[in-house]
Amino acid sequence: RINSDRLWDSIMEMAKIGPGIAGGNNRQTLTDADGEGRQLFKRWCEAAGLEMGLDEMGTMFARREGIEPDLPPVYVGSHLDTQPTGGKYDGVLGVLGGLEIVRSLNELGIKTKHPIVVTNWTNEEGARFAPAMMASGVFAGVLDQADVYEHVDKDGKKFGEELERIGWKGSEKVGERKIHAFFELHIEQGPILEDEGIDIGVVTHGQGLKWLQVTLTGREAHTGSTPMPKRRNAGLGMARVIELVHEIAMDYQPDAVGAVGHMEVYPNSRNIIAGRTMFTIDIRSPEKEVLDAMDGRIREGIDTICEALDIQYQIEQVGHFDPVTFDPGCVKAVRDAAERLGYTHRNIVSGAGHDACWINRVAPTAMVMCPCVDGLSHNEAEEITKEWAAAGADVLFHAVVETAEI
Amino acid sequence: RINSDRLWDSIMEMAKIGPGIAGGNNRQTLTDADGEGRQLFKRWCEAAGLEMGLDEMGTMFARREGIEPDLPPVYVGSHLDTQPTGGKYDGVLGVLGGLEIVRSLNELGIKTKHPIVVTNWTNEEGARFAPAMMASGVFAGVLDQADVYEHVDKDGKKFGEELERIGWKGSEKVGERKIHAFFELHIEQGPILEDEGIDIGVVTHGQGLKWLQVTLTGREAHTGSTPMPKRRNAGLGMARVIELVHEIAMDYQPDAVGAVGHMEVYPNSRNIIAGRTMFTIDIRSPEKEVLDAMDGRIREGIDTICEALDIQYQIEQVGHFDPVTFDPGCVKAVRDAAERLGYTHRNIVSGAGHDACWINRVAPTAMVMCPCVDGLSHNEAEEITKEWAAAGADVLFHAVVETAEI
Ligand SMILES: NC(=O)NCCC(=O)O
Ligand SMILES: NC(=O)NCCC(=O)O
Repeated sequence: RINSDRLWDSIMEMAKIGPGIAGGNNRQTLTDADGEGRQLFKRWCEAAGLEMGLDEMGTMFARREGIEPDLPPVYVGSHLDTQPTGGKYDGVLGVLGGLEIVRSLNELGIKTKHPIVVTNWTNEEGARFAPAMMASGVFAGVLDQADVYEHVDKDGKKFGEELERIGWKGSEKVGERKIHAFFELHIEQGPILEDEGIDIGVVTHGQGLKWLQVTLTGREAHTGSTPMPKRRNAGLGMARVIELVHEIAMDYQPDAVGAVGHMEVYPNSRNIIAGRTMFTIDIRSPEKEVLDAMDGRIREGIDTICEALDIQYQIEQVGHFDPVTFDPGCVKAVRDAAERLGYTHRNIVSGAGHDACWINRVAPTAMVMCPCVDGLSHNEAEEITKEWAAAGADVLFHAVVETAEI
Repeated sequence: RINSDRLWDSIMEMAKIGPGIAGGNNRQTLTDADGEGRQLFKRWCEAAGLEMGLDEMGTMFARREGIEPDLPPVYVGSHLDTQPTGGKYDGVLGVLGGLEIVRSLNELGIKTKHPIVVTNWTNEEGARFAPAMMASGVFAGVLDQADVYEHVDKDGKKFGEELERIGWKGSEKVGERKIHAFFELHIEQGPILEDEGIDIGVVTHGQGLKWLQVTLTGREAHTGSTPMPKRRNAGLGMARVIELVHEIAMDYQPDAVGAVGHMEVYPNSRNIIAGRTMFTIDIRSPEKEVLDAMDGRIREGIDTICEALDIQYQIEQVGHFDPVTFDPGCVKAVRDAAERLGYTHRNIVSGAGHDACWINRVAPTAMVMCPCVDGLSHNEAEEITKEWAAAGADVLFHAVVETAEI
């Protein structure tokens, strides 16, 4: 078993960097706080005798040598970046859970045949720069590195330039590493495990996702003196699309979800009818056919809404992954570990996207989930218990060591 | 007749200060650009032999002495501040139209019995600081000066402090001036005059307005892993309220309008269900009963929407004026002037709020309107012709001189 106090202390230590305003964290990718978090993680890794690699996407790879150094390593990790109003565990548990495995192996004097690499993937959240799971997407060859370097945040700052600015752009080419297997521990971010009182989610699948960034162009005009029939109201158009997305998701739930969390309004003045709005639709489903059907219905609906309001639209897909089926061998390693350790477990589908979803395309991959209070995540109030974290890390430990072979 | 070239040149000169990004202006109240615009207006007034007064709300009063200095002056003016994406004429035409009257009187060597005061009211637009028509509202005793000093813009800057910062806080107590009559020339900001090919709108009434600032509080949660029935989506709530406001306005139009132009979303991340939204509802009608009925239906509707979505709401009224009936004597002076000068004219109701609406409560007041292209205002593309401006200023000239007596 891992050392649950040490794991918990490390999580709390990391949470001091980039504190939020309500007990959580604002440690968005490529901010100074992200840099500080990386520095702390690096110090811990060096103290544990690991050797740090850094690729051109800023992903950190902390290697514990194996008995047979030429064997491809077993990777384990997640991400240290957070939402602007994120929790202390989303991502962090997976990275520090990986570190805790290594610390425990060191303490127990256990050597594995395969090297073990603890990984911190850059920009998993996609909050500051779309899309989410950016570095793992480039690693898996799904996203183009030169392209994502040009992606800008709300202030127009480029991903590539910010990566250099914080000093974490490495020289290693992205995606050239051989991966024997990848394991990611993560909080569920949904309510199922807690509701059912189950310790461990054995993640068999991941939902697919689409992010559609919509720009509506109407005409700025006076809210008082412009007759109702003369309006070309991009704000009203946005409201109708938000309702449309909700209705379509309701039609398919529980096999789908949908919402708009990001909205921009121009010029955003009380007495000006919005001339332009920009917002991102987030739709997800574990079934590819459902995801595609939602996408189609949304595009049709936007067309109808905009025609009625005499406004123009533009739709750009800024994020996409199809539903994922994790590797049966790795999934079995997770299930066997939970079984062996005596934890209650069940199969589960991940509602969120994870770096594991991309890495699964290039290497055998699986995930371990632990419950979180009230299923709440992407909220500073996100909470888990030390026991839940320990159970998750224990299962991760056994699945990784089993795969890395003693 | 006034000198239309001189008037036009002055308007174009003023438009160079605080240029927009699409041919209009961004000279929002109490910005450095507002300060520059005031400076230019002051220089012009001094060159025309006027004496400048400045009150504690920053309103500028440029006085041309009358033959009988003890008679209460005739006031004429409007505002020099603009929307963030405003036009070159909204407000400016009324202030510089007033200045042009004085310049013409000087040139013609005409003296009036009553002094004439050209006025630039502070913060008419209400874009940066709610409510609109702030200084005239304090002047009329409807708004409280100490209270509005504390109003903050989006960056948390206070009105009172910004007024001092730009150096235009005067020492004159607000509202103590005796006003014989007040005339305001303004572009229509609606399509009626242009559609009907009419030169002059004789403004008999002004619409009433309410600004309701609504805050919805739901719960931030993950857009992917939070089941649809568990969501408390403040973004969806906002969308439904926007649609509600539109539907209610449609029920009463053409006797009402309604829209939401201002919206804030927290934390505004693509993969976070909005935990909080804040937005301002703008509803207007020339009938007080209609305005009140809309207000009631909106409050009821918000209650129903929020109950269904399990979100909380708070409604704060941040702007309000009842419909206005302008002074029959002043209205007649405007109509007679248009008639005498041979301009086509019609009675009209102002769809927008104006400083004249507040001043009408403390002094006989009327307004002159001229057409604007396509009824478009609160848009950088706002446009008028030199001839329309000249006709408006001519009518203003005659109405003011008639009232100030030769
Ligand atoms: N796990 C997680 O919150 N990832 C962020 C990407 C997503 O929106 O699913
Ligand atoms: N005339 C004008 O645009 N005033 C601003 C206040 C309003 O919204 O009516």
